[in-house]
Amino acid sequence: MSEFLKLITPDEALCQLNGYVNTLVNIESIDTAKTLGRILAKDINAPEDLPAFPRSTMDGYAARAEDTYGASEGLPVYLRIIGEMPMGKHPEIPIHKGEVVKVHTGGAVADGADAVIMIENTQQVDKLTIEVSKPLAPGENILRVGDDIKTGDSMFSSGHVLRPQDIGALMALGIVQVELFRPPRVAIISAGDEVIAPEKTPEAGQVRDINTYTISTLVRQAGAIPLPYGIIKDDAKALSQAVKTVISVAEIVVISSGSSVSTRDMTAGVISSLGKPGVIVHGVSLRPGKPTILAIVDDKPIFGLPGNPVSAMVVFDLFVRPTIYRVGGCSHPPHLPTITARLTRNIPSTTGREDYVPVILEIIDGRYMATPIFGESNLITTLVRAAGMARIPLDKHGLTEGETVSVRLF
Amino acid sequence: MSEFLKLITPDEALCQLNGYVNTLVNIESIDTAKTLGRILAKDINAPEDLPAFPRSTMDGYAARAEDTYGASEGLPVYLRIIGEMPMGKHPEIPIHKGEVVKVHTGGAVADGADAVIMIENTQQVDKLTIEVSKPLAPGENILRVGDDIKTGDSMFSSGHVLRPQDIGALMALGIVQVELFRPPRVAIISAGDEVIAPEKTPEAGQVRDINTYTISTLVRQAGAIPLPYGIIKDDAKALSQAVKTVISVAEIVVISSGSSVSTRDMTAGVISSLGKPGVIVHGVSLRPGKPTILAIVDDKPIFGLPGNPVSAMVVFDLFVRPTIYRVGGCSHPPHLPTITARLTRNIPSTTGREDYVPVILEIIDGRYMATPIFGESNLITTLVRAAGMARIPLDKHGLTEGETVSVRLF
Repeated sequence: MSEFLKLITPDEALCQLNGYVNTLVNIESIDTAKTLGRILAKDINAPEDLPAFPRSTMDGYAARAEDTYGASEGLPVYLRIIGEMPMGKHPEIPIHKGEVVKVHTGGAVADGADAVIMIENTQQVDKLTIEVSKPLAPGENILRVGDDIKTGDSMFSSGHVLRPQDIGALMALGIVQVELFRPPRVAIISAGDEVIAPEKTPEAGQVRDINTYTISTLVRQAGAIPLPYGIIKDDAKALSQAVKTVISVAEIVVISSGSSVSTRDMTAGVISSLGKPGVIVHGVSLRPGKPTILAIVDDKPIFGLPGNPVSAMVVFDLFVRPTIYRVGGCSHPPHLPTITARLTRNIPSTTGREDYVPVILEIIDGRYMATPIFGESNLITTLVRAAGMARIPLDKHGLTEGETVSVRLF
Repeated sequence: MSEFLKLITPDEALCQLNGYVNTLVNIESIDTAKTLGRILAKDINAPEDLPAFPRSTMDGYAARAEDTYGASEGLPVYLRIIGEMPMGKHPEIPIHKGEVVKVHTGGAVADGADAVIMIENTQQVDKLTIEVSKPLAPGENILRVGDDIKTGDSMFSSGHVLRPQDIGALMALGIVQVELFRPPRVAIISAGDEVIAPEKTPEAGQVRDINTYTISTLVRQAGAIPLPYGIIKDDAKALSQAVKTVISVAEIVVISSGSSVSTRDMTAGVISSLGKPGVIVHGVSLRPGKPTILAIVDDKPIFGLPGNPVSAMVVFDLFVRPTIYRVGGCSHPPHLPTITARLTRNIPSTTGREDYVPVILEIIDGRYMATPIFGESNLITTLVRAAGMARIPLDKHGLTEGETVSVRLF
């Protein structure tokens, strides 16, 4: 049984798959401190104003701005210190005309004051008097109530991936528990008569399983839970049984199988036999990664990845990672770290195909220089030596030495 | 007690600190599958050849190259199929003159063969005969023993941070346990009379603790273990006691304290009183983050971070993160994700000072456009709204609209 290899661009392929992919996970409530990289399941609006009291942004003196109007080097004004505002308190020290209260950065501004004079702009005349030679505008060096966040402000939308500063902001608002989508579970099946577990000693013709481990860690990096199923034989019955088993416990299935045409066709056939719509994309104008399979069974995405490690990684980044985020509740996954580099030599390609080439990076004169690592895409050392993967866009007939190239960093 | 504020560049400051920083953690043996982001404590050389047998990189026929010499469209050669090499096996199917054995991608190449004819380059004449119309070179479409990795090849050096593909490569070599440095423990002390725990309701003048949580998650992102100590009062005795306590259990100490001059001077004084050399750097030509304190006590790095969230994050990235890696055994931490963008408006700066400005990013015509978010550096919303932080180099007197800028992505 040979599937028709209809080659579409990677963007079209993902777009076709996305048409079938929805958030598949439930919601749970988690301590905010433990939510790094997790995805919000509800919009969050600010429950209160921040700051909750007028706060000084400088060390200095809380004052009435109008008392300083007209102050100059030649004609300074003199103001009377009536006290000091302790940090963490807001005692009633109301100030009146001609009075100031000492205040520290972050401290409360005394009642009656509408500006803070920076300490550097004052001269202390005696214990109770400062000289001011520059006028202040009302509001200067003060954060007013709600200047940072106002009650009801939209803070985050459902689908947002929480970063360190977001967790800080939630804590600042007293939001110590949040509703999150549960991370998707991603089953990983490694198929191949020649594949054995890494702790075993291979006999002639056998190789150790790599992809279970590479894909499991990529899944974890994407914020999901890997469920490694193990190694199965390269036959339709074993594959069918394995997919049926994992589809009942996982939201996403990744099958890493051999690179021979017969194996790929068998994988596509088995997937389509398990439910509708089955295989959606079989073959993408992508190198490496052309024989990629994208499928949906029981509303769950199933990916057929080429067996060699470089292809598997490229296909993971382009298709599996965004799908993990989408199933997990986020339609715009965080950027993969990408830099721009100058090529040290030509890279051939073909118009209409997106190419990914592992590269070594050096910094010369403050600029990244990328040197492609050519070779068989099934070499393990290629990815170990590489610092990243350069992308040759669809519309390019290769890139020449000196051109800039976008490199996704590992 | 006021410390002399000697302003040095961020690079010089880190360099001075690095002079005192060594790997401080022990070694442990861990299952390779669980080592993502961990740091190798030993060099690793390949214990065996990969591939361990001659492997076909194509679907086709294992053949003797010399049997195809002279083959052309007009004068094809005919070769006899004597069997098929099953995947995962290497049975003795030696081939002789004029013979071929069918082979799948990744399969073993039959003894006696020195090349593989791609199936696309053959015509099957009958069940036992193929027609070949192009000559093969010896070695074509074959990975020979050790072509990928040779026994004794240097695979990784001590200090390497393990990525998904590295874990795959170790598995391919049967290395299922590795020696790693233990992750450093980083104690986090949040000082301030005004600071309260996030679950409490602030009274006038009080604010909830942010930095314990932001810094804890940044520590975790950097592969270390955060030990949040909690909130202490802003006095010398409390700080001294807290540092003495945590320095016995952590390899690194981070103190987030107030931004007032008196608080910073108190922090520096306490640290220097605890041991030699004490404070090494107090004040860096950096905005935000000028009042940064870098210190060493009992051979352990201690950082005094400004209290406001934007400064704390900048100082963490520039000083704490590289130190976490250095203490943990890696002197070249992985790149932070950084992109190049075009500025949509001017950013003022001062020559001799490195500036970091939170920015919003948009993609217009396939190019990142960065719009700076100006405002008080102690606004919480600034970092929540920002997609990254733009860097204005030391030697620039600001950047103008349309210039390119390097942006560290969150």
